[in-house]
Amino acid sequence: MPSDNVFGADNQQERLEMASWISGFTDGEGSFSISVIKNSTTRFGKQIFPEFVITQGAKSLKALENIKKFFGCGSIVLNKRYDNHNEDLYRYCVRSISELNEKIIPFFDRFYLRTYKQNDFILFKKVIKMMVKKEHLNKRGWDKILVIASKTNRKKNRF
Amino acid sequence: MPSDNVFGADNQQERLEMASWISGFTDGEGSFSISVIKNSTTRFGKQIFPEFVITQGAKSLKALENIKKFFGCGSIVLNKRYDNHNEDLYRYCVRSISELNEKIIPFFDRFYLRTYKQNDFILFKKVIKMMVKKEHLNKRGWDKILVIASKTNRKKNRF
Repeated sequence: MPSDNVFGADNQQERLEMASWISGFTDGEGSFSISVIKNSTTRFGKQIFPEFVITQGAKSLKALENIKKFFGCGSIVLNKRYDNHNEDLYRYCVRSISELNEKIIPFFDRFYLRTYKQNDFILFKKVIKMMVKKEHLNKRGWDKILVIASKTNRKKNRF
Repeated sequence: MPSDNVFGADNQQERLEMASWISGFTDGEGSFSISVIKNSTTRFGKQIFPEFVITQGAKSLKALENIKKFFGCGSIVLNKRYDNHNEDLYRYCVRSISELNEKIIPFFDRFYLRTYKQNDFILFKKVIKMMVKKEHLNKRGWDKILVIASKTNRKKNRF
């Protein structure tokens, strides 16, 4: 198997292949979710919570570490399992609006998804762009984001 | 989104990206399984049944069709669902030993998997190479294949 060192400037070809691989892997294992969670300290008592996540079993932690290294942002968190699976899960996640806007979105604009998940990405991008322009801080923008969020694969919307 | 036409000889770059994308997508959604099924017409009363499969929901059928087109082999079958999911599943699968040997294995040798699934592929490849040499037809080869099969993520081994 080729080495893990795919980040040298002298290895453009491998970097391109790694990028396309990440696109495919995201089509399989990734998610672009927009949750709305309770937060009494915010203007509308709730908070928009966009997140890009890739989940893997512990045996493939190395792949997540390489993805994190590739993007140069995000974090990997352990999801301990207490069911009958004997392998813990790890989640690579990016939550920072600026990193989503400056790193994740341009990446998937270039290395586009090829499954139905592309639709989730388009909605996700729309929300991030609105949040960058602070539109979620006024009622009209807020309501618009809620409508978009309702169309995505949300996991933990606590309205 | 770019066009689906990624197969022209004039589009080597897009073909390379599609190939790497398929590698990533397989790391997420693919499987290399070696089943052992009953078959009273064969020498040992059972049959080795290797299969490369990628499964997707009906909404992403187009992605499977493009993968089939890319490899130029295999078939897509509908798995009707009768549980509480409202989306049928489709499976892209390659079962022919010669197509696995001549198309699928060389592809994943070049566009290698980057998760733990690479281990499954290595075992899978070992079995296909043995079957190409007809080693499964003698007792020693047969037993060796059974040992390898027991290490992979088998789905329906009916010993």
